[in-house]
Amino acid sequence: MSKGWVPQDPAYEARVRESFSRQTHMATLGAAIVFIAPGQVHLAFPYAPQFCQQNGFLHAGAIASVADSANGYAASTLAAPRTDVLAVEFKINLLAPTRGESFLACGQVLRPGRTLTVCQAEVFATGTADRTLVATMLSTIIVRPIERDSAI
Amino acid sequence: MSKGWVPQDPAYEARVRESFSRQTHMATLGAAIVFIAPGQVHLAFPYAPQFCQQNGFLHAGAIASVADSANGYAASTLAAPRTDVLAVEFKINLLAPTRGESFLACGQVLRPGRTLTVCQAEVFATGTADRTLVATMLSTIIVRPIERDSAI
Amino acid sequence: MSKGWVPQDPAYEARVRESFSRQTHMATLGAAIVFIAPGQVHLAFPYAPQFCQQNGFLHAGAIASVADSANGYAASTLAAPRTDVLAVEFKINLLAPTRGESFLACGQVLRPGRTLTVCQAEVFATGTADRTLVATMLSTIIVRPIERDSAI
Amino acid sequence: MSKGWVPQDPAYEARVRESFSRQTHMATLGAAIVFIAPGQVHLAFPYAPQFCQQNGFLHAGAIASVADSANGYAASTLAAPRTDVLAVEFKINLLAPTRGESFLACGQVLRPGRTLTVCQAEVFATGTADRTLVATMLSTIIVRPIERDSAI
Repeated sequence: MSKGWVPQDPAYEARVRESFSRQTHMATLGAAIVFIAPGQVHLAFPYAPQFCQQNGFLHAGAIASVADSANGYAASTLAAPRTDVLAVEFKINLLAPTRGESFLACGQVLRPGRTLTVCQAEVFATGTADRTLVATMLSTIIVRPIERDSAI
Repeated sequence: MSKGWVPQDPAYEARVRESFSRQTHMATLGAAIVFIAPGQVHLAFPYAPQFCQQNGFLHAGAIASVADSANGYAASTLAAPRTDVLAVEFKINLLAPTRGESFLACGQVLRPGRTLTVCQAEVFATGTADRTLVATMLSTIIVRPIERDSAI
Repeated sequence: MSKGWVPQDPAYEARVRESFSRQTHMATLGAAIVFIAPGQVHLAFPYAPQFCQQNGFLHAGAIASVADSANGYAASTLAAPRTDVLAVEFKINLLAPTRGESFLACGQVLRPGRTLTVCQAEVFATGTADRTLVATMLSTIIVRPIERDSAI
Repeated sequence: MSKGWVPQDPAYEARVRESFSRQTHMATLGAAIVFIAPGQVHLAFPYAPQFCQQNGFLHAGAIASVADSANGYAASTLAAPRTDVLAVEFKINLLAPTRGESFLACGQVLRPGRTLTVCQAEVFATGTADRTLVATMLSTIIVRPIERDSAI
């Protein structure tokens, strides 16, 4: 899994944690960083009844939200100092119902780039002894200098 | 836009509205049905600071959540009575920053199927005079008899 | 359909046609440009038995090939002079069997950008009176100065 | 990588090879099966000048074609006897230029299902000592009884 990526920014972890702390959507969903390494970020999040679809499973969009952040911050670990990341697009396959008690979204870089980084996230239900893959996401992320707010 | 789809279930609108009312995630995000027709469902939702990414834009996952529901219910309008819909997968491109006051996710069926329905959603920022396309989603939705809870 | 895009390069059509003429894969598949306008490129291609899957339908990859080129050149119509385009990623849904006599891949820009352009292609079977949508593709395309051959 | 999938059809390998032999598009592209196991199919294919884009790289659609077949047949290894597979949709990210001498598309099942199977393919350039990941694909595949030719 570890590709031996070398971070460009020695302070990548602090930068990622600071940015994550500003994502109100992650706080709302109860997501927390549980692992950071060069090219990898894992986010844990709980089942919660207020983010469900019609049958009491977690809504696909809630799962996608956390997987998207896991991928974005995985990309960010390998980005230069004073850069920000933005999802250009992602695709998610939902593989199993998500009524577990807790979940883990594991984002990892497949290919870092100067402009675009491609990441993959796997989301697992972790409530039981045997963790189950419930979703997989493939994302394209753009890395940009901070304070440049203009169009992609 | 209207493809002249003929609904199989004359009570499709009541079925869609009842199912939507059970999606707690849509209530949490403040999304509401503003239009239903055979093959189409439009959902309106507001900007809200608790669903944002690190720079105060709506999180891509929040936008994806509403677009996913718009597509799922667009598929549902053409499904048989006593069926339910489930997203198999979706892909979304984020096209513009989403700091507008309000948004509209317009889901429509591209191809209805006995088992699988393919839908496309466009998400617009609607706060200003000129609405802007902020995201586009392509989804695959599975239609299943209600009370069958088993694996895809 | 026409979004009123204004091309940056008055000679966009010659540039697109010259580049297309170098795509040996399009020649191999028998694809030809049948329409160019700012933000739009349509490619026609025939059914051919040497590009099929196991049941004699056109292989999904053959259809994806032409749709990808239609989207790439649609993006190229709006790009600056002396730029080239490259697909970053695409997603395609196959909607109907493709045993028609001829096909049309209609690529159009959804959002042009300085670096990234998002396009959508629809592929139709055109052999009969009533054309059928057989596939839809959503693509992210990167625009780059010519002669820069380096990594994305 | 191996998930310990148990094939439903003891004759899966013969079934996959027979079906693959009918894919004229794979023969045209020069692709060959180099590995089959439950849940996995690897296809090798060469660089060839007649399947290129404008700069002499293999066209994204040629790479996508082989990755799509690798994923479809990976799904097929776990399917029941007398079934066929069909791609519902796929998404591919192109990660690096593809001017290598030879390539390997490694398809594997992420989640087998009664109706739908989700697969992932990695495509590597293998011409040099160090193989390079050039593309990654996520696919949804439908498994259907043979001789049922009707709509999805």
